[in-house]
Amino acid sequence: MTTRLSQLFVRTLRDDPADAEVASHRLLVRAGYIRRQAPGVFAWLPLGLKVRRRVEQVVREEMAAAGAQEVHFPALLPREPYEATGRWEEYGDGIFRLKDRRGADYLLAPTHEEVFTLMVKDLYSSYKDLPLCIYQIQDKYRDEARPRAGLLRGREFSMKDAYSFDVDDAGLDASYQAQRDAYERIFQRLGLEYVIVQADAGAMGGSRSEEFLHPIAIGEDTFVRSAGGYAANVEAYRTPAAAPVDASGVPAAIIHDSPETPTIATLVALSNERYPRDDRPWEAADTLKNVVLRLTALDGTRELVVVGVPGDREVDMKRAEVAFAPAAVEAATEEDFAAHPGLVKGYIGPWGPNGPVLGETSSTGIRYLLDPRVADGTAWVTGANAHEKHVYHLVAGRDFTADGVADIAEVRPGDPAPDGSGPVELARGMEIGHVFQLGRKYAEALGLQVLDENGKLVTVTMGSYGIGVTRIMAVIAENAHDEKGLIWPREVAPFDVHVVAAGRDDVAYEVAETLVAELDAAGLDTLYDDRPKVSPGVKFGDAELIGVPLIVVVGRGAADGRVELWNRATGERDEVALHEVLPRLRAAG
Amino acid sequence: MTTRLSQLFVRTLRDDPADAEVASHRLLVRAGYIRRQAPGVFAWLPLGLKVRRRVEQVVREEMAAAGAQEVHFPALLPREPYEATGRWEEYGDGIFRLKDRRGADYLLAPTHEEVFTLMVKDLYSSYKDLPLCIYQIQDKYRDEARPRAGLLRGREFSMKDAYSFDVDDAGLDASYQAQRDAYERIFQRLGLEYVIVQADAGAMGGSRSEEFLHPIAIGEDTFVRSAGGYAANVEAYRTPAAAPVDASGVPAAIIHDSPETPTIATLVALSNERYPRDDRPWEAADTLKNVVLRLTALDGTRELVVVGVPGDREVDMKRAEVAFAPAAVEAATEEDFAAHPGLVKGYIGPWGPNGPVLGETSSTGIRYLLDPRVADGTAWVTGANAHEKHVYHLVAGRDFTADGVADIAEVRPGDPAPDGSGPVELARGMEIGHVFQLGRKYAEALGLQVLDENGKLVTVTMGSYGIGVTRIMAVIAENAHDEKGLIWPREVAPFDVHVVAAGRDDVAYEVAETLVAELDAAGLDTLYDDRPKVSPGVKFGDAELIGVPLIVVVGRGAADGRVELWNRATGERDEVALHEVLPRLRAAG
Repeated sequence: MTTRLSQLFVRTLRDDPADAEVASHRLLVRAGYIRRQAPGVFAWLPLGLKVRRRVEQVVREEMAAAGAQEVHFPALLPREPYEATGRWEEYGDGIFRLKDRRGADYLLAPTHEEVFTLMVKDLYSSYKDLPLCIYQIQDKYRDEARPRAGLLRGREFSMKDAYSFDVDDAGLDASYQAQRDAYERIFQRLGLEYVIVQADAGAMGGSRSEEFLHPIAIGEDTFVRSAGGYAANVEAYRTPAAAPVDASGVPAAIIHDSPETPTIATLVALSNERYPRDDRPWEAADTLKNVVLRLTALDGTRELVVVGVPGDREVDMKRAEVAFAPAAVEAATEEDFAAHPGLVKGYIGPWGPNGPVLGETSSTGIRYLLDPRVADGTAWVTGANAHEKHVYHLVAGRDFTADGVADIAEVRPGDPAPDGSGPVELARGMEIGHVFQLGRKYAEALGLQVLDENGKLVTVTMGSYGIGVTRIMAVIAENAHDEKGLIWPREVAPFDVHVVAAGRDDVAYEVAETLVAELDAAGLDTLYDDRPKVSPGVKFGDAELIGVPLIVVVGRGAADGRVELWNRATGERDEVALHEVLPRLRAAG
Repeated sequence: MTTRLSQLFVRTLRDDPADAEVASHRLLVRAGYIRRQAPGVFAWLPLGLKVRRRVEQVVREEMAAAGAQEVHFPALLPREPYEATGRWEEYGDGIFRLKDRRGADYLLAPTHEEVFTLMVKDLYSSYKDLPLCIYQIQDKYRDEARPRAGLLRGREFSMKDAYSFDVDDAGLDASYQAQRDAYERIFQRLGLEYVIVQADAGAMGGSRSEEFLHPIAIGEDTFVRSAGGYAANVEAYRTPAAAPVDASGVPAAIIHDSPETPTIATLVALSNERYPRDDRPWEAADTLKNVVLRLTALDGTRELVVVGVPGDREVDMKRAEVAFAPAAVEAATEEDFAAHPGLVKGYIGPWGPNGPVLGETSSTGIRYLLDPRVADGTAWVTGANAHEKHVYHLVAGRDFTADGVADIAEVRPGDPAPDGSGPVELARGMEIGHVFQLGRKYAEALGLQVLDENGKLVTVTMGSYGIGVTRIMAVIAENAHDEKGLIWPREVAPFDVHVVAAGRDDVAYEVAETLVAELDAAGLDTLYDDRPKVSPGVKFGDAELIGVPLIVVVGRGAADGRVELWNRATGERDEVALHEVLPRLRAAG
């Protein structure tokens, strides 16, 4: 098949679009693959659609190989199933909701666990029907607060979402592994580097969850990995609990005046000036910072918690969101402090269910949680729950205890991997796939049960597996481009070869016509730049921008039966005889 | 490729779904092709998706053959382009509207003229770029008042919509013809009978428009056709103007009392009793009925019109809608009559801009329009604009004239085709395709101009061409089924062949396994009913319900190397030797 550039619905642009923040967005727009229709909403021109379909094809083939069956669900869905699982509310502003002419509530589905679950409930009733894995490739919707970066984070985007159904945990493990393996094959075929990281299951519920991250500086996710093979999303990283230490040599706790020390930095400076210790200066790591957070449960009830973290670490609010999910987490407000005068801002100390360990007030009902690093026997400088007073030598387990652990401090390079595989480093990645063991959450909420071998009703256990098709296309573009344009891997390139007629006379065009007919006959999908009166320089620029990996230039040598083979990725240009073109293209493929 | 029925995500149902009004809906649900998710919104199970993809494939091939290029636009679109053409308002309750988190207005697009126009404006600027035809196959949305009949009228449905762009009318004619030809090929390949009827362009604007209707009793459209080749939607049928007749022998008009004759029937009865004429009895066709309609323009302004139609015909409100478009049409209300006491209900007569021709009042500003059958010289019995009074021998052109023509009376079998090709008959049809010459309406509203050969800016002229992909699938099912189930044409069948292992012993299954492996190797797409412990009767019933056109039964004869070839459409079952199966299947294909 030959597509003539003179006929193709495309225009390349010299200039970057004003709103494009990342290379894939800039280049996909400039090369005429996509055009923005609204924030995070794109139209697909012929070039873009071809690449998208090729990515979909790779996904389809690997889904089929993994035994998954393709179905297609609506984007427009009624409220009720999402109400039954609580997600209608949980999604908050993150989804598009609408009403039909009768006032019934609908949403544009961001993901389809509920309706797949209900469909299996409708069709299946026996353990003999399982395992089952069904998937779709379908346009999904999320009302992102900041749709940005072109296809990397859109509001309308194509996703492959698969759902597995099993009678028992071993079955779920096998279904999960089959999808996980399929994802590895997909990313390998697409030439995309990936790291599989432990992830938090978040709003999806369930037990085990891993993300496929493509390491890239513009990635929206931070993950940690150790040389020994541990990898996790920072939200899923679990700080190992520190071992207890011997506190027998620690003096008794003592309260000191600490004027104007509402921050860790001012406290450390004052401590070294007024209350120096013999062996070494006080550091931020010697202080215990007590942070007040406001939790809002799904039913709207609110709770304050105080969390003690070493003073040299900040709280990571994303980790806090995961730790306290499904409750929403915010910093406490002035109103909260006003309601609890015992919370002396800047000077808060350990705080228990019966009120503060130190200080004057008797506010109760506020849980006190501790960072896992605060082991029994460790001594701290911390607030004394009184204005401009701190307590020194306050020992965990001796002088105060907590109601529980809150692992919400930031993760840093050098922190230990929880599996003992060494210190971690931090990197940025873009999520390109996600596999979840949902367990029985959705099946329970929606009543999906089957009869087991003994004729007893058992609740089905499920997995959910997503790949962002349009995002993958953008990640490939991020990954494979240079300053001149895109460089597609052959597996997803819009064409097998790009033939450029670049001579100034008719001979080049005649030779090029013969060549593309030959390539067509050989079954190659060819883009032919047949535009008359367009200079070779402009044509070369367009070829580099469009990024078909193999280019054939039919130019001055055409009259002598010679053309140039141009490798877009390496920039190499070889002069070859015409009859060598097809064998060379085949060898390159 | 072989799909084992034991693994396929499907369940057949014995009973019809309660909400299914038509055969395609009943059978597609019962055979496990689709399932309803909300009114007019369906999920596609593997069988249904396969057929849908095959229909799409036929459409894609013929679009490519017609030189159309595939693109893909979003379903979620901003209000502004639809505002610019007035359609945001015009669609009324017929579309889904929603707001994003910032309060911006969006719609789920019912059709994409606006954004295709804007895209061409963005990319192209010269006559050299045209002609262009671009299309998409994409899920569309309409908030139908009565989503019914399964896929025949859904609220989420797949459509192929193509748009052509030309510099001049001759170009548009050629583009229109290319799409029209492609539609004929598509329906021929799908084995779908169609009638191309003249249609009214309606809300789409534009000049020429034809519908492809599939003649079917459950069709939602009524069309007329003559033996001589004329065919039109009833809304598009134009009544030929009647020739003037000689009224010299008609006596002067005379007003008679006509107590209790507010209807044509009572008027005719009274006329024959009290005022009989010599040659023949009065008939409804001798009377002129004056109907009062209320028109509401797009800007909300209202107008009353009186339309005179022969008393033996009803007004067809759908034809009236077309005749008065874009104004909305309703019957006048009691309020309207109260505001115009000169409109004496049941006794209204011809009415001019200066008030009624007869009667007492002087209400003005109400236009009087006449059916084209009311030729000059024809004489009528009609209301005298006074309670219980009618006028006889009132002659058009002599005693009254109209402000214009209103061709809104019902069309009847035997009415003349306007092209002189004989009397028409009426039939019901389902719209399966629609081609429009939009002209310059959208290009003008959105500023799509290109430079012509002389460097002058000219407005582009457009066409719009739609095929309902999911509807076509339902129409095929309506067209090809029997009481036992579906009967797919091979072009869109979900599988090439359905192999049923129907023996009670292992031999049948062993032979069937060998056979499906052979069919697989030969490249056939096979559905294999390998279910153990399911009776042959149930398997045969499922095969008839699912409707793969060719069935191979591997049963009692299997041990002797003999199987049955079963033609689903004809019901014929031939016993053949195993080695004959593949050649026979190929011959049948």
